[in-house]
Amino acid sequence: MAALRLAIGSAGRRSGVLALLGRPAGGALEVCPLLAGHVRQSSAVSARRGGVTASKAEDFSSWYTQVITKSEMIEYYDISGCYILRPWAFSIWEKITEELDLRIKREGVQNAYFPCFVSQDALEAERSHVEGFAPEVAWVTRSGTSDFKSLLAIAVRPTSETIMYPAFAKWIRSHRDLPLKLNQWSNIVRWEFKQPTPFLRTREFLWQEGHTAHATREEAEDTVATMLDHYAEVYEQLLAVPVVKGRKSESEKFAGGQSTLTLEAFIPTSGRGIQAATSHHLGTNFASMFDISYEDAMGQRKLVEQTSWGFTTRALGIMVMVHGDDRGLVLPPRVAQLQAVIVPIYPKGKNGNASIDARCQDLRDSLRAAGVRADADLRANHSSGWKFHWWELKGTPLRIELGPRDLERGTCRVVRRDSGEGTDLPQADLGPAVQAELGRMHADMLGRATRERDGAIARVTEWGEVAGALSAKKLVLAPWGESAVSEEAIKEATRGELGAPSAPGELTGAMKSLCIPLEQPHLPPGTRCFWTGEPARRWCLFGRSY
Amino acid sequence: MAALRLAIGSAGRRSGVLALLGRPAGGALEVCPLLAGHVRQSSAVSARRGGVTASKAEDFSSWYTQVITKSEMIEYYDISGCYILRPWAFSIWEKITEELDLRIKREGVQNAYFPCFVSQDALEAERSHVEGFAPEVAWVTRSGTSDFKSLLAIAVRPTSETIMYPAFAKWIRSHRDLPLKLNQWSNIVRWEFKQPTPFLRTREFLWQEGHTAHATREEAEDTVATMLDHYAEVYEQLLAVPVVKGRKSESEKFAGGQSTLTLEAFIPTSGRGIQAATSHHLGTNFASMFDISYEDAMGQRKLVEQTSWGFTTRALGIMVMVHGDDRGLVLPPRVAQLQAVIVPIYPKGKNGNASIDARCQDLRDSLRAAGVRADADLRANHSSGWKFHWWELKGTPLRIELGPRDLERGTCRVVRRDSGEGTDLPQADLGPAVQAELGRMHADMLGRATRERDGAIARVTEWGEVAGALSAKKLVLAPWGESAVSEEAIKEATRGELGAPSAPGELTGAMKSLCIPLEQPHLPPGTRCFWTGEPARRWCLFGRSY
Repeated sequence: MAALRLAIGSAGRRSGVLALLGRPAGGALEVCPLLAGHVRQSSAVSARRGGVTASKAEDFSSWYTQVITKSEMIEYYDISGCYILRPWAFSIWEKITEELDLRIKREGVQNAYFPCFVSQDALEAERSHVEGFAPEVAWVTRSGTSDFKSLLAIAVRPTSETIMYPAFAKWIRSHRDLPLKLNQWSNIVRWEFKQPTPFLRTREFLWQEGHTAHATREEAEDTVATMLDHYAEVYEQLLAVPVVKGRKSESEKFAGGQSTLTLEAFIPTSGRGIQAATSHHLGTNFASMFDISYEDAMGQRKLVEQTSWGFTTRALGIMVMVHGDDRGLVLPPRVAQLQAVIVPIYPKGKNGNASIDARCQDLRDSLRAAGVRADADLRANHSSGWKFHWWELKGTPLRIELGPRDLERGTCRVVRRDSGEGTDLPQADLGPAVQAELGRMHADMLGRATRERDGAIARVTEWGEVAGALSAKKLVLAPWGESAVSEEAIKEATRGELGAPSAPGELTGAMKSLCIPLEQPHLPPGTRCFWTGEPARRWCLFGRSY
Repeated sequence: MAALRLAIGSAGRRSGVLALLGRPAGGALEVCPLLAGHVRQSSAVSARRGGVTASKAEDFSSWYTQVITKSEMIEYYDISGCYILRPWAFSIWEKITEELDLRIKREGVQNAYFPCFVSQDALEAERSHVEGFAPEVAWVTRSGTSDFKSLLAIAVRPTSETIMYPAFAKWIRSHRDLPLKLNQWSNIVRWEFKQPTPFLRTREFLWQEGHTAHATREEAEDTVATMLDHYAEVYEQLLAVPVVKGRKSESEKFAGGQSTLTLEAFIPTSGRGIQAATSHHLGTNFASMFDISYEDAMGQRKLVEQTSWGFTTRALGIMVMVHGDDRGLVLPPRVAQLQAVIVPIYPKGKNGNASIDARCQDLRDSLRAAGVRADADLRANHSSGWKFHWWELKGTPLRIELGPRDLERGTCRVVRRDSGEGTDLPQADLGPAVQAELGRMHADMLGRATRERDGAIARVTEWGEVAGALSAKKLVLAPWGESAVSEEAIKEATRGELGAPSAPGELTGAMKSLCIPLEQPHLPPGTRCFWTGEPARRWCLFGRSY
């Protein structure tokens, strides 16, 4: 129990904190197996709030389920693949949407809302698009007790290209109507049959989808790249998750689009890459299907160049997997609903103390005044030890302990969730010091995750090195010829790498192309494709993925 | 053309503004029949931007359709009852959601997100609830090309009580878990068969739904009333729409709830009342069905008292209907995306002027610095007259004209959209003056709408007065015995009041109970019900409605 070890690290605190372990806390004594020797109240509330028992390294899947449910991010639901986003998760999504919405609007994009239903005709207008999405579409065929008559069925949006673009065709006539830049925040339904995982693969999710139309290819490509940059900054600056910017291979690009830029994140524990956000250049494919054209300044009719780009609630799952540890969530400070929790430590044998509580409230108020999202946990029915564990499980970035000694000395102990490090800080003017600590914590979390990710990218030039890299839970950066045939063959050749072929719906051991990184290492002339032996075109990042 | 009349009202402006009518504006001259003699460019863009041709008083339905489409609030969609909320409408919804979200959070409510699908079992758990919603439910029965097997069908949420409350049952164990206060912003689907009307009655709409659980009935009732107050303040303080707070009759209350508080607005042009927002006390009805109980401080298990309350995009339709006029939208200043538009007026015969444009930009910047949402319309391809009409159609609260004389005198002309009144104001320190004008405009719009509404409530004590009041497009405030039988009979008796029985799906001429106002006029002892002649219980507001 690192928190406890740290809490008793300074000799001055030892007796007070150790006393927590054995004293009554407003109820009958009960040793809770989940909290490793800590004593807590036997109330119905606390009994079901167990800590995380699975080890992240040893049983990642159980660990993930425990962390997201016990920290109160997710509640399972009686329809498979659908989950409840509880306030602890939704508040993070709100922080992301605030920041992203601001960035999107600064790019001159306006928010709108399009219907969640699309007719079969419209959905099927773009052939490769519908081929990509049709297997996952949920169809409404009945209202009340009557089957639909006039329409065969209507689909719940799996994405909104085919919903928005008929309207684009109406709105765009002249070059003066361009660029048209719209965005919507909405729910999306994709009835996937792979094993669902909260946040990562769900049948309903939340996202933002931006859709723009431009007169020139250059402007469209700029938009695609700019939005990818915003997405990358949100991952790095808000979630402390490093991402690789790259381009999807032909077989991995968006169905119906011309090219797809992507952010790829990395989950060290599973050694898998994960698509973190995508930004598509649609070219004129949809424009020609939906007849979205404009009259240019010379009176010529031309098709518009389009883009679409999306950022989803998947980001929360990536954040949990990258940062969490065996004690629970570790929340990046900038998105945590609560950045600092103040926990009073009462004098030995006491179950409360008015001056300590009052000082905790003062500290909370001064932190809030300094812009820190802070609260004081003054609940009388839980011990300090119980609270330590509770807020660790919830991933709160900083715990601020305030006991009798602190009261005398005018200090408090600030303990970081990511590293467990504790520092005694003066109570006076605590706000700026706490802000600085939150800033350091963000930088450290991003730094650690980046080092882990970088250390897990094996640069490979020979096929023979691939299996070793995969079993060492690494991604593979290899010179590639970029043929679709080779991509399929590479998947096939690595499918058995995890041992037995995977069960239907389970994650596969096969390695696929994640992206061709935008920042390319030098490719010496004459370099051969690691699979075909033909001349390589670029370095490509491969790996197992979600 | 009131705007023009006012614009040429001051002698000094006359020549300049009249010159607009006959001069080329960057393209071929064309007299647009929709813009009543004003000259505009014959571009594809402007040609389809006609003004409103229907009269609000004479053809309200066409007027409404024209106003919401031509102002670019709404685009029709190929699935009946579904509409596209364009940025001009969605930005108003964003203003409402910002304010309401803040108020909801201040009440200690947290945002969350629950799935949009509900299983048949859960939906049907509360009998009167499902009876209320079942006929309107859209059912998903198929994904990809496969019909569902394990489930008969899943419903798209028509409201989320049955989605949320099984989780409430898991989360609530002890009195310490109460109150539980959650809210979500989401889309909702009700497959109505009455004639759809954008904003007012749509098969998909956006809303906020709050759901709380409490230990005591008093606390639940407080919450219900508090949320109704917030809703009323949003209507009055943001949308400048007056509302009556009241209680729904037994037959009009929320299906499955115990009692419903409501806001009723009034549309003078049609003489109809319209439900503007509702707040329900659910009592323990759902709690007993979903087993949501807690252990109180004495160790007793008790059912929670629940509330739910919602505010929808219908508000935008009410706002349009109450404030719009024959020139188009009139937007209440606090929700308008653009509060003030600066239109340059160039010297006679000129199609642009660098110093006027520069001054317009300065004014825009200084207004923005003062917190006014302002822009300058410097488009070279439209005349000033065209721009006047365009921004009138869009309902922009203030138009600020800046011409050569203004440049000389250091003034500009500020013209109000609601009244057409124009005032010459100094350019220097324009921000505070414009803010004050926006404030007066809001108060005047609310004042006018309130007077109209108050003037259209006929206090009636005899049944014989009802028909006259209805044909004078009034609501009826009458002493009522409150029996369900009488309510049905009143509807029946007034059904023919508009002449022929209405076609299926059309609005009916029948009068129904809107609400029993919370502020009751004095009811003299012995007052008789206006329908049954039995003793009256309270005054009730009746009327035709949407």
